Amino acid sequence: MNNLENLIAKIEPLDQNAMQKASERLDNLTKPIGSLGVLEDIVIKLAGITGEIIPRVKNKMVIVMAGDHGVVEEGVSAALQSVTPQMVYNFLNGGAGINVLARHAGAEVKVVDVGVADKSLSHPDLISKKIRLGTANMTKGPAMSREEALQAINVGIEIAQEEIDKGIDLLATGEMGIGNTTPSSAILAAYSMVDVPSIVGTGVGLDEAGVHRKIKAVERALEVNKPDPADPIDVMAKVGGLEIAAMTGLFLGSASRKVPIVMDGFISGAAALIACKLAPRVKDYIIASHLSQEPGHKLVLEIMGLKPMLRMNMRLGEGTGAALAFNIIEAATRIMSEMATFEEAGVKMN
Amino acid sequence: MNNLENLIAKIEPLDQNAMQKASERLDNLTKPIGSLGVLEDIVIKLAGITGEIIPRVKNKMVIVMAGDHGVVEEGVSAALQSVTPQMVYNFLNGGAGINVLARHAGAEVKVVDVGVADKSLSHPDLISKKIRLGTANMTKGPAMSREEALQAINVGIEIAQEEIDKGIDLLATGEMGIGNTTPSSAILAAYSMVDVPSIVGTGVGLDEAGVHRKIKAVERALEVNKPDPADPIDVMAKVGGLEIAAMTGLFLGSASRKVPIVMDGFISGAAALIACKLAPRVKDYIIASHLSQEPGHKLVLEIMGLKPMLRMNMRLGEGTGAALAFNIIEAATRIMSEMATFEEAGVKMN
Repeated sequence: MNNLENLIAKIEPLDQNAMQKASERLDNLTKPIGSLGVLEDIVIKLAGITGEIIPRVKNKMVIVMAGDHGVVEEGVSAALQSVTPQMVYNFLNGGAGINVLARHAGAEVKVVDVGVADKSLSHPDLISKKIRLGTANMTKGPAMSREEALQAINVGIEIAQEEIDKGIDLLATGEMGIGNTTPSSAILAAYSMVDVPSIVGTGVGLDEAGVHRKIKAVERALEVNKPDPADPIDVMAKVGGLEIAAMTGLFLGSASRKVPIVMDGFISGAAALIACKLAPRVKDYIIASHLSQEPGHKLVLEIMGLKPMLRMNMRLGEGTGAALAFNIIEAATRIMSEMATFEEAGVKMN
Repeated sequence: MNNLENLIAKIEPLDQNAMQKASERLDNLTKPIGSLGVLEDIVIKLAGITGEIIPRVKNKMVIVMAGDHGVVEEGVSAALQSVTPQMVYNFLNGGAGINVLARHAGAEVKVVDVGVADKSLSHPDLISKKIRLGTANMTKGPAMSREEALQAINVGIEIAQEEIDKGIDLLATGEMGIGNTTPSSAILAAYSMVDVPSIVGTGVGLDEAGVHRKIKAVERALEVNKPDPADPIDVMAKVGGLEIAAMTGLFLGSASRKVPIVMDGFISGAAALIACKLAPRVKDYIIASHLSQEPGHKLVLEIMGLKPMLRMNMRLGEGTGAALAFNIIEAATRIMSEMATFEEAGVKMN
């Protein structure tokens, strides 16, 4: 058994006993049973993940994985590939959307270069784990080798585990990579029976001709590479991306350490889908945040059976939707620890 | 012109110039245009309300209006009427859901007795504005007189204005009143062509027979009282509630002072609907928070053209959904004040 199989085999089911006890406590708090809806679902999930009946969240982090995509040659993005490293510097200087929203949530941001197509990218706070200078153009062959996909997944596993071992107890996935809604669409298409045109969106802001090129690129990538859905690593290698694979690793690493992980938008969703195909129990460790404006996001959530709590019409990525959900998750934990019980408050419902 | 007409006439339209400038600034921040969706909509709305291009939120408050309902005699609630004062004490002692979520959002909670059916209700922190000991049973005649409805609306206007004058710059509506989804359903039915059964929900937790009684009560209240939709005060007096009318006043008072107000769930929605029927411009001052599990809430939002950002399956009321939205609204203001522009970050999209 290799390292990945080993890790997958060790991902444990949720603690049913803690979930049952958390649920009982929730029903004793001064509110109609179940009336706090998703806040209660979150508390029960956290109890199942952590084994704590009154779960707490102390140290939160968004990990932003960055990588480039050879498929941008096909004209599938409205932005230049050079925007990827420029935005990486923006993250490292604290000026991007994810920096603002993470700061607002009291969360750290870590930025990882898994495959940005810029040799000179460097910064003291950048975690450099570059595997290659962006993927190959997947319309002409595999985006990367199987070995490279496994390496990228491993980057995510190791970083998640390291940060958790240093005290992080709530993670979120984020990404940067011009063109990355294209491989995400291809991954989703490989796992659904839906037509490619209904999955593909405008990304940064494609016009109609651009969307048409993107649809053709996804269709060609699937045709040329014939990824095998029964082999999730094959799908990731052939039509995925380096930062997407690294996020798959974040989901696996987080679940392996029994720490909840918040999923951002469509690209995070594609990464989560591969993680769940590799290890179905990973799903139980994921908290869905928002419903992205990218049309494929709804489907990827449905396939995994996850429901997003936020409808913000956002499509920025970077982990921004996940960072917004941090506050709600903390609110849920405070409901559990701070609300009065019926007995304490002297309330008799009926 | 009486006081209410006077106040309504003075509610101003949004500042289009500030909205235009806010929108231009948003388009210069390092993100694809419009990609922060509702966060951008919120910033633009706040700019229009306050006239500030970079709007700030400093002092937040949830005002919880409490009142009772004579219609509970008809068996329309799964909870006892005595729960209303018991929960008021719970609010005042800081143990209820709204206390926890407001604390988490850094917001104050004020509790106002507009018509709780308990003569002895008192507490140093309770704002006592009791108009009567609960409404009359609306299935047998009007819930209250026109004069009482106007008084209750005035309570809301005055409290909103006082708190704003003391420095509150973001308000939210909350309520407590066993049975209050029944008058809310009647108000909504008066303003829609939808069948009563499709509006009426389970409230605290009615069984099927209870829901049937509730539907019959709403239908009878409408039949007996024939509220005139062209006269929103008539609707409020005949099939409304004291705390609902007071929340209508909060919306009016907030708009009159150019301060944004966050709408909670279904009952807040019924109050907002009456406010918007009295003064259509009020809508521009409202930020919708969550979509409640109560079936009527979706319709009331649609009638007003408002979109909720949170899908939490909540149905607790008290202002809990609105309090959760506070953090998102603040996040939006920080996006505007803290994100780097393309020039500052040296990012060139295309």
